[in-house]
Amino acid sequence: MSGLRGLWVDGIEGAPVPADDRGLQYGDGLFETILVRNGVARFLELHLGRLERGLARLSIPFVDGPRLRADISRALDRAPPLAILKLIITRGTAERRGYAPTTGSPARHIVSLWSAAPLTGVEQGVELGVAQLRLPEPSPFAGLKHLNRLENVMAAAEAMASPAFESLLLSTAGHVVSGIACNCFLVRSGGLLTPPVDRVGVAGVMRQVVLREAARLGIPAREQVLELQDVFESDAMFITNARIGVVPVRRVREHVFGMSDIALRLRDAIEVLDA
Amino acid sequence: MSGLRGLWVDGIEGAPVPADDRGLQYGDGLFETILVRNGVARFLELHLGRLERGLARLSIPFVDGPRLRADISRALDRAPPLAILKLIITRGTAERRGYAPTTGSPARHIVSLWSAAPLTGVEQGVELGVAQLRLPEPSPFAGLKHLNRLENVMAAAEAMASPAFESLLLSTAGHVVSGIACNCFLVRSGGLLTPPVDRVGVAGVMRQVVLREAARLGIPAREQVLELQDVFESDAMFITNARIGVVPVRRVREHVFGMSDIALRLRDAIEVLDA
Repeated sequence: MSGLRGLWVDGIEGAPVPADDRGLQYGDGLFETILVRNGVARFLELHLGRLERGLARLSIPFVDGPRLRADISRALDRAPPLAILKLIITRGTAERRGYAPTTGSPARHIVSLWSAAPLTGVEQGVELGVAQLRLPEPSPFAGLKHLNRLENVMAAAEAMASPAFESLLLSTAGHVVSGIACNCFLVRSGGLLTPPVDRVGVAGVMRQVVLREAARLGIPAREQVLELQDVFESDAMFITNARIGVVPVRRVREHVFGMSDIALRLRDAIEVLDA
Repeated sequence: MSGLRGLWVDGIEGAPVPADDRGLQYGDGLFETILVRNGVARFLELHLGRLERGLARLSIPFVDGPRLRADISRALDRAPPLAILKLIITRGTAERRGYAPTTGSPARHIVSLWSAAPLTGVEQGVELGVAQLRLPEPSPFAGLKHLNRLENVMAAAEAMASPAFESLLLSTAGHVVSGIACNCFLVRSGGLLTPPVDRVGVAGVMRQVVLREAARLGIPAREQVLELQDVFESDAMFITNARIGVVPVRRVREHVFGMSDIALRLRDAIEVLDA
């Protein structure tokens, strides 16, 4: 891929991955995508905390935390002013073929660093489409940033012909879940609403930061099951992820939103934070 | 993994897989598991046909069919009397990071050959547990043997403490879907019932062979949405996959089945087939 500045597999630079890795065979693992600014991995501890919780939920024993941190440090030493740090942990190479996660080999960690371009053209808000593909709800792995991402891939494929910045994803139950690679927030009556992530969706780190900073700024915020009609009846909307931060939404389909002071306050407050 | 007799990545023996392969990054690909007896890959054309239909559904352009067949031939040349041939096709390495399946690099094919032990102790039927994990229904990728298999992995993890041969998987709607790595059939009133695979589950090649051979033998067979109660109210049950063929089920939880002439007839008729 273009933009790759370095890649380490279990600490070995440029190493490939054995073809019998369970990440490749089954998507048996987790990942994190972290923005790096001036050599600092933003919200690193929040990302590592989420990773640790995910490993526990998938019962992936991972004891290489210090080695993972050492590889992250090596990657950051090489970071251009703006970069993406991607971490993948797989269950490693199994003792034998088959779904059952027999132990025997340790988990594998893959650290890669990518150059990134500054985000431009989003200050006035972005446009969202609505994906045809529906996310199954409930998912046994709701909240996790796991490696089974075919739904996101095919929703992104569907969106490639569209000029929209992102697509809203709905669940099979008709609930608003998120974007393809972001979480979403509605602004209504001076407060924030965001879909829960306990039945479907990913518990984004930037989503967590928004909820934390909203509390700090005294902005009411809560999780609520939302439908598309709720989107259209809101005062404003914004999307979030580690890469883009907080980005206002100008339009969803034919519905045009105004700019929201709340979104801009949160964006500006979070923009200066690294932890 | 133990038992590996050979592995080819895009025709290169023993080659690893680049860590930025989309199969590893997102589970963006498909696979086939094929039984090899005396150097013959059983039902190979049915497996390749399913693979081709899956590639079309995921819009993965794959033009290396002749090279894939050449690699399969090389693997088969090395096959012990009983072996497993595994094929994986991923969308390859993308031009850039992100879910969108930008073209630019061709799909990647991975062929591996594994020794296999004869299946023993199943003649009198096997015991099935019932997994706690529920498969989300409907899935946008129902029927496909794709690389997003975390549900199967975690259901297999759950079953590891049990002495049962396999676990029945139910969907979030309460429907019987399959086993963890097999399809299932109920015998009732001299005919066969099997769950449809258009909303959840995998369209197994051995399932397809059973339906074909049932028609040939004049055994009525149809797809029907089934619940666990239907299992308990059936005369008999059997499970199927490419590895095990047709295996009668003796017991599901506390419910004990008798032996079914229909299951044994189908098993014996299919056992001698290679195509």
